[in-house]
Amino acid sequence: MFVDMPEADLRQYRSSQSDPSDFDSFWAETLASTRRFDLAVEVIPVDTGLKTLDVFDVTFSGYEGQRVKAWLRVPHDATGPLATIVQFQGYGGGRARPLDDLLWASAGYAHLLVDTRGQGSAWGGGGTPDPDGSGPAYPGFMTRGIDSRETYYYRRVFTDAVRAVEAARSLDVVDENRVSVLGGSQGGGITLAVAGLVEGLVGVFPRVPFLCDFPRSTVFTDSSPYKEIGNYLAVHREKAVAVHEVLPYFDGVNFSRRATAPAWFTTALMDNTCPPSTVFGAFNEYRGEKEITVWPYNGHEGGGVYDDEATLAILNGMDN
Amino acid sequence: MFVDMPEADLRQYRSSQSDPSDFDSFWAETLASTRRFDLAVEVIPVDTGLKTLDVFDVTFSGYEGQRVKAWLRVPHDATGPLATIVQFQGYGGGRARPLDDLLWASAGYAHLLVDTRGQGSAWGGGGTPDPDGSGPAYPGFMTRGIDSRETYYYRRVFTDAVRAVEAARSLDVVDENRVSVLGGSQGGGITLAVAGLVEGLVGVFPRVPFLCDFPRSTVFTDSSPYKEIGNYLAVHREKAVAVHEVLPYFDGVNFSRRATAPAWFTTALMDNTCPPSTVFGAFNEYRGEKEITVWPYNGHEGGGVYDDEATLAILNGMDN
Amino acid sequence: MFVDMPEADLRQYRSSQSDPSDFDSFWAETLASTRRFDLAVEVIPVDTGLKTLDVFDVTFSGYEGQRVKAWLRVPHDATGPLATIVQFQGYGGGRARPLDDLLWASAGYAHLLVDTRGQGSAWGGGGTPDPDGSGPAYPGFMTRGIDSRETYYYRRVFTDAVRAVEAARSLDVVDENRVSVLGGSQGGGITLAVAGLVEGLVGVFPRVPFLCDFPRSTVFTDSSPYKEIGNYLAVHREKAVAVHEVLPYFDGVNFSRRATAPAWFTTALMDNTCPPSTVFGAFNEYRGEKEITVWPYNGHEGGGVYDDEATLAILNGMDN
Amino acid sequence: MFVDMPEADLRQYRSSQSDPSDFDSFWAETLASTRRFDLAVEVIPVDTGLKTLDVFDVTFSGYEGQRVKAWLRVPHDATGPLATIVQFQGYGGGRARPLDDLLWASAGYAHLLVDTRGQGSAWGGGGTPDPDGSGPAYPGFMTRGIDSRETYYYRRVFTDAVRAVEAARSLDVVDENRVSVLGGSQGGGITLAVAGLVEGLVGVFPRVPFLCDFPRSTVFTDSSPYKEIGNYLAVHREKAVAVHEVLPYFDGVNFSRRATAPAWFTTALMDNTCPPSTVFGAFNEYRGEKEITVWPYNGHEGGGVYDDEATLAILNGMDN
Amino acid sequence: MFVDMPEADLRQYRSSQSDPSDFDSFWAETLASTRRFDLAVEVIPVDTGLKTLDVFDVTFSGYEGQRVKAWLRVPHDATGPLATIVQFQGYGGGRARPLDDLLWASAGYAHLLVDTRGQGSAWGGGGTPDPDGSGPAYPGFMTRGIDSRETYYYRRVFTDAVRAVEAARSLDVVDENRVSVLGGSQGGGITLAVAGLVEGLVGVFPRVPFLCDFPRSTVFTDSSPYKEIGNYLAVHREKAVAVHEVLPYFDGVNFSRRATAPAWFTTALMDNTCPPSTVFGAFNEYRGEKEITVWPYNGHEGGGVYDDEATLAILNGMDN
Amino acid sequence: MFVDMPEADLRQYRSSQSDPSDFDSFWAETLASTRRFDLAVEVIPVDTGLKTLDVFDVTFSGYEGQRVKAWLRVPHDATGPLATIVQFQGYGGGRARPLDDLLWASAGYAHLLVDTRGQGSAWGGGGTPDPDGSGPAYPGFMTRGIDSRETYYYRRVFTDAVRAVEAARSLDVVDENRVSVLGGSQGGGITLAVAGLVEGLVGVFPRVPFLCDFPRSTVFTDSSPYKEIGNYLAVHREKAVAVHEVLPYFDGVNFSRRATAPAWFTTALMDNTCPPSTVFGAFNEYRGEKEITVWPYNGHEGGGVYDDEATLAILNGMDN
Repeated sequence: MFVDMPEADLRQYRSSQSDPSDFDSFWAETLASTRRFDLAVEVIPVDTGLKTLDVFDVTFSGYEGQRVKAWLRVPHDATGPLATIVQFQGYGGGRARPLDDLLWASAGYAHLLVDTRGQGSAWGGGGTPDPDGSGPAYPGFMTRGIDSRETYYYRRVFTDAVRAVEAARSLDVVDENRVSVLGGSQGGGITLAVAGLVEGLVGVFPRVPFLCDFPRSTVFTDSSPYKEIGNYLAVHREKAVAVHEVLPYFDGVNFSRRATAPAWFTTALMDNTCPPSTVFGAFNEYRGEKEITVWPYNGHEGGGVYDDEATLAILNGMDN
Repeated sequence: MFVDMPEADLRQYRSSQSDPSDFDSFWAETLASTRRFDLAVEVIPVDTGLKTLDVFDVTFSGYEGQRVKAWLRVPHDATGPLATIVQFQGYGGGRARPLDDLLWASAGYAHLLVDTRGQGSAWGGGGTPDPDGSGPAYPGFMTRGIDSRETYYYRRVFTDAVRAVEAARSLDVVDENRVSVLGGSQGGGITLAVAGLVEGLVGVFPRVPFLCDFPRSTVFTDSSPYKEIGNYLAVHREKAVAVHEVLPYFDGVNFSRRATAPAWFTTALMDNTCPPSTVFGAFNEYRGEKEITVWPYNGHEGGGVYDDEATLAILNGMDN
Repeated sequence: MFVDMPEADLRQYRSSQSDPSDFDSFWAETLASTRRFDLAVEVIPVDTGLKTLDVFDVTFSGYEGQRVKAWLRVPHDATGPLATIVQFQGYGGGRARPLDDLLWASAGYAHLLVDTRGQGSAWGGGGTPDPDGSGPAYPGFMTRGIDSRETYYYRRVFTDAVRAVEAARSLDVVDENRVSVLGGSQGGGITLAVAGLVEGLVGVFPRVPFLCDFPRSTVFTDSSPYKEIGNYLAVHREKAVAVHEVLPYFDGVNFSRRATAPAWFTTALMDNTCPPSTVFGAFNEYRGEKEITVWPYNGHEGGGVYDDEATLAILNGMDN
Repeated sequence: MFVDMPEADLRQYRSSQSDPSDFDSFWAETLASTRRFDLAVEVIPVDTGLKTLDVFDVTFSGYEGQRVKAWLRVPHDATGPLATIVQFQGYGGGRARPLDDLLWASAGYAHLLVDTRGQGSAWGGGGTPDPDGSGPAYPGFMTRGIDSRETYYYRRVFTDAVRAVEAARSLDVVDENRVSVLGGSQGGGITLAVAGLVEGLVGVFPRVPFLCDFPRSTVFTDSSPYKEIGNYLAVHREKAVAVHEVLPYFDGVNFSRRATAPAWFTTALMDNTCPPSTVFGAFNEYRGEKEITVWPYNGHEGGGVYDDEATLAILNGMDN
Repeated sequence: MFVDMPEADLRQYRSSQSDPSDFDSFWAETLASTRRFDLAVEVIPVDTGLKTLDVFDVTFSGYEGQRVKAWLRVPHDATGPLATIVQFQGYGGGRARPLDDLLWASAGYAHLLVDTRGQGSAWGGGGTPDPDGSGPAYPGFMTRGIDSRETYYYRRVFTDAVRAVEAARSLDVVDENRVSVLGGSQGGGITLAVAGLVEGLVGVFPRVPFLCDFPRSTVFTDSSPYKEIGNYLAVHREKAVAVHEVLPYFDGVNFSRRATAPAWFTTALMDNTCPPSTVFGAFNEYRGEKEITVWPYNGHEGGGVYDDEATLAILNGMDN
Repeated sequence: MFVDMPEADLRQYRSSQSDPSDFDSFWAETLASTRRFDLAVEVIPVDTGLKTLDVFDVTFSGYEGQRVKAWLRVPHDATGPLATIVQFQGYGGGRARPLDDLLWASAGYAHLLVDTRGQGSAWGGGGTPDPDGSGPAYPGFMTRGIDSRETYYYRRVFTDAVRAVEAARSLDVVDENRVSVLGGSQGGGITLAVAGLVEGLVGVFPRVPFLCDFPRSTVFTDSSPYKEIGNYLAVHREKAVAVHEVLPYFDGVNFSRRATAPAWFTTALMDNTCPPSTVFGAFNEYRGEKEITVWPYNGHEGGGVYDDEATLAILNGMDN
């Protein structure tokens, strides 16, 4: 069933999320601190048994120089420079196995699929640790270090993601002027963060994005993982105000207010995990050119491979 | 948790399924009747936007000449003859979309992914109707026409599958002497049926196969879809004996008793959908060379991409 | 809890379902085509062991001459002509067993309880096949053949139901001028269809009727069986428009716009399966005299035997 | 799935329930005390609108003279004496409405359907209070007064049931030498109690009976209502021994050890509510002639109307 | 997620509960009748092994002289007169064990924790019987005797609670001018009843109170125990009007309209058991000085120990 | 229902867990490394408003000097030295609030309730961070750092616990020769670890202990948190052997093989979270004097306050 307001209202909905005056300086300082560390990109070929594609095990330095893993896939013997897609994963998953996710390279693109630190044990295995510990947290990742913007888990994740784009652009096979970012759910939230923090992207594809419109998303659904924040605040009652002072720095609404690259969002009207109003909360703030596909009969699976087909048509159109 | 007997007992377990004396004549007559119809294979290229692979929309005549859909994927501009994988799908799914399932073609194989008639509306969309109606049936496919072996739904499905292999072998890009069959869950059950009905296969890959060891599988789990039979017999109580006289003609145990191609099974010790004893019920009867991979901590997802990695290594080893 | 709008709003609610200009011609042609086949009513006495009632196994030709089963129950040695109730069943059920449903005959009526083709394996066993196959469908009956109005499952079911009334009227024991139709849930939806397609009924009793107000019912509840349509469109996304062009031909809202016999609806304010707004969507369009009973504390069980008591009082009142 | 031991083992299984030396004196004294009160049977015709049957609202004095309600149904204008069925209800239900349960009277029998005191608000409404309060109890009826055999709820219920048979036998329309008792689930447990306490019954029909083999049934299933006892003892831990000293006086196993009328039990191999071993625990002790029908693919619904068909054939056979 | 209207609307919400003209005379007569019985307070020391506190097993005469149990806890060797808290328990629980609930005595108060008759078998064991039986009731306590205000279960419970305060005030260790009442959920509902029926209380602490605003609470949630009333009326459909004529006499809304002692309510915005609108329904009618704490991220656990901290600060402030 | 083998078999059951030859050296080195850091115990009085007890906020240096929080509660103005209980918490909880857990101090003991690092956000709030990050982990704590014994989360937790006992013994109010350790579930697992690593304890109270008998517990239940390990290995399939080489160093079975202080275990026969066989797996290896209480009708709540009563009787007996 429809889980949220009617579509016409969704298109008018405006998030109440605040825009902190030091949002930009917070992120500028965060990225500057991490950029003190060399990217140190390692690219090691993987023996996959595939014939039409080459897969490489990529490692680069993310947040504060901590090492992050990714798979690079390209057409066999490609030399580039190729139009490139940097992709981020949904909650709980990692870059998965070399034989997974062959689509974008098969379509002629360089494809960098990036781990999410600490994740990758609920599905699609990952290989990137999160070396930073945290204060008491609800099981999961949403409340790790949430008591301050400096220690919040997604500060590290978003910084890793910015560095992933920089790592991609440093590769010969990648055309640094033709990089897009893409992801579903948490990957969509990371995509929006990158869109707000990185210049010169040619495409932004946040699908059923997570990590948006926290004033609403933390109280509008009982589905995990938004609910992890509610579970945390149900115990740490005295922290509700402080947590909501931290979250604006990580909200897709605020990244959207800064992003300028063209974006193609998707959302689904039966999605309880990332309710459509929270997606429109970001979309309606998005500063660049934008479109949104609304799937009426779908839940959090969103557009699935139909979204891939649309994205591929858009990207192939750019290339022509 | 482990859902079945200890692994040591699984390896000794023998199914009590009977082997009807006219099993072979039933299938010989079924296939002969269908073979009166020309295969009439149509192969139409699909504009997918992919660069390294070509995808074709294949239609051929299955059971009693009824038309069945499949996708053929091959490396771009491949001429063959190529080693080939014919794959069948799990319960409820269809051949899905052209951009799905790029693995086997990316590994250099011709890959024919076949619809299951009537299915493909619960996930991975399909395009093949089941033009035959049925008597009263429990919602789903397990009890359609189950009152006689002539009308049972899987008689049509297994015949389609045999014809799919024949359709593949008729193509120039396919090396008819290097055809393997593969599938998970229902696709594994169909794989076993094909292994028992088709000569000259080089590899048989039934993963967490369904449709095995009905004397046990209909009473040992409450999970769908085996439970559909139980639900049917809970209403049509007077039909229990008759249904169990029909099922031996469609049981992977009996196809295994006839199959001679080398086979690599997989099963998972926490799989409630296709409990491991029912898989071993077939495996322990399998007449050809055989191996089985046992996943201790997995449920019905079985080996997932780990199984793909193992299969690819086996197939690439054959090619060398 | 109340699942829908307040009762005052329900009484004002108007369905947005369209009324296709060729609705009447579609059904006229459908019925004309079926009426080419003789009804060929067979009535065979059943040895039930009952003393006060006689039960007969009835078979007649429904859609395109396909044979449909029903039970006829009358007071022992009744000769008629009797006031008569033709009843249709809820989703998944069939005419059940001869000893079931003794109420109406015990009250002195002729009672024809009709199978729903293909159903009768989830509860109350049925004996009527659905000889027509279909394209890919979600498990269940709601999406069989839904891609066109010609092939949709309920075209056959509603035609069977019209023929059931005609079969009843052809019997000596039945007073053809005193026939009512009755059913709950799916049986209520069929009742409404018959009310819109058959002349001269004296009573129409749709209880918590299903198959109403599809623009709303397919998106307002997650309960089966309405949800089957949503599940189908979640996979076959490209078909949403086409499906909603088919459904108006089968919507109780449109049959209500044509029905003239007096009707007694029921609905329940805690009914998630057939939400009250979808029932009022039909009721508020109903063209004949009408009343509706609203059960505030009930779910899809609706009025149960309390509805029987009310119906019996109404019918007995007619007889006087 | 099968919930209990294999059928062959079920047939050998012996309950470990003790047989208290004062079991007979306890019940003799209980009944003697109640029989000090006159039965005071009231029989008031009900205006049901039915034609073939007459329904009467019956009230009689049960336990300690407290008034108990029942429906008496007979063929219209029957004078008797008729073979008679006294029926008891499943957990939570009451005698329901006058229009319910027309089978036995339609088959020519006098049928007395008895309320269960205090119950009849979860389904099938009842009209009999339980004027006795109780100590702290888990919500439900299983633990009311369970701290002593004198105060236990089922002492009152079983006494009511014995008096119901006596009330039936006092009626002109009833042939006191042709009375059977019947019930499903809790009604089956009551049926067994009556079989152990009343002389001269011609048939005993306990279907999927409840209230049997407490040493096992309180620890072998998590389903309500057996689980109510476990829930009670999970709080009142110190009472476990005492409760198990009370329960033998109310266990179908012990009533079976005393019953001599011919009995037809039923049980279902997928019944988690009244697991088959607990039914066999009583059946295997039953002292009279006995048969048991085993439904392999059913749960607690047991044989449903199939059991009615079998019972009717048995009873009609007796009458001939 | 938020389960009810926005907080601003909650603060404006007014219950539609009627205020019967004979509400006061009903309760005056009820209490007068009970007060004919002597309180007969027994206070027996319990050997707990504790060093800083003394625990006493208290018994007094509640409704119509029936004996009710409580624990009295005071600081070791306290002589008083002490400020005192009389506490009532949540649904299903009893006074629990002597070693439970040491907080208030450890803070220097006399603490009387009162059983709820018949309860105390779902958690926190109780020792007080409910000697009065009832008509047919849904399992649980909500519908016992609900067919009339005279027989309704909570008439007895609320009378017990008034007598508990009187019993406390009769003790030497208690300062009768410094008595507060406190409870969560059902205990909160009883607290409100006492606040409306007893003079001279210094504090009233209803936390997430139950038994409020029945016109709304019986149809606004599917959670037990409010739902018990709905379940009862789903069977006893004809009693809906009568039940809603009984409930106003037991509704916290009406007790609030009469209460004058200062009150501190709590409620939680994610509480489905006692939805916040039903709490505000009472709070907004409360006649005395009042405050309400709103917990945004909590469910029915409400404020938990945070509420204890706040209550203790309030009480300690009173003492200074 | 009983979830495991019969009690007689439980008493004979022997765990198959291996006892690594370097178990003792691993822990000796771990503790030696941590003991390089000063305990640096801080004890700050908390203003709780309590009168009979004093509560102190304690901080000490745990694993590798990282700071750990605890509450110390003692009778008001106690000077000691007192018999002392060091308590550890269940999974997900922390030391909670100052007003919680007043039992042991009220009984005259010094009571140190210790945080579990990183936990305390699912219930009972905690204040101790886990500064060490980890590799990819399943949400929760069970798989943090599980790829090596050096990095495994419980290495840090158990070391904290040993240091907690040392911190307690360093306090004037504590009699270092009369220290007991106690905990339920995870707290029971930690209790066993401390019993195996610390000399001179007078009592060990592991209640329904967790973290025992991993060869069985990781495959015998689907309940969290044991299942977290299974979920992890379902994704990281290649790590199953390595993980089971790490777990023996943290298994209560191996700590039991080394513990010499008298121990009182509890277990519950309906406990799916910590199945009784896994508890007996540790108990049956326990080297010191031992008793075990078996709760037949309880689940993971085990003995609850009944266990407190028993423990208090044992401890008070020691004091005499």
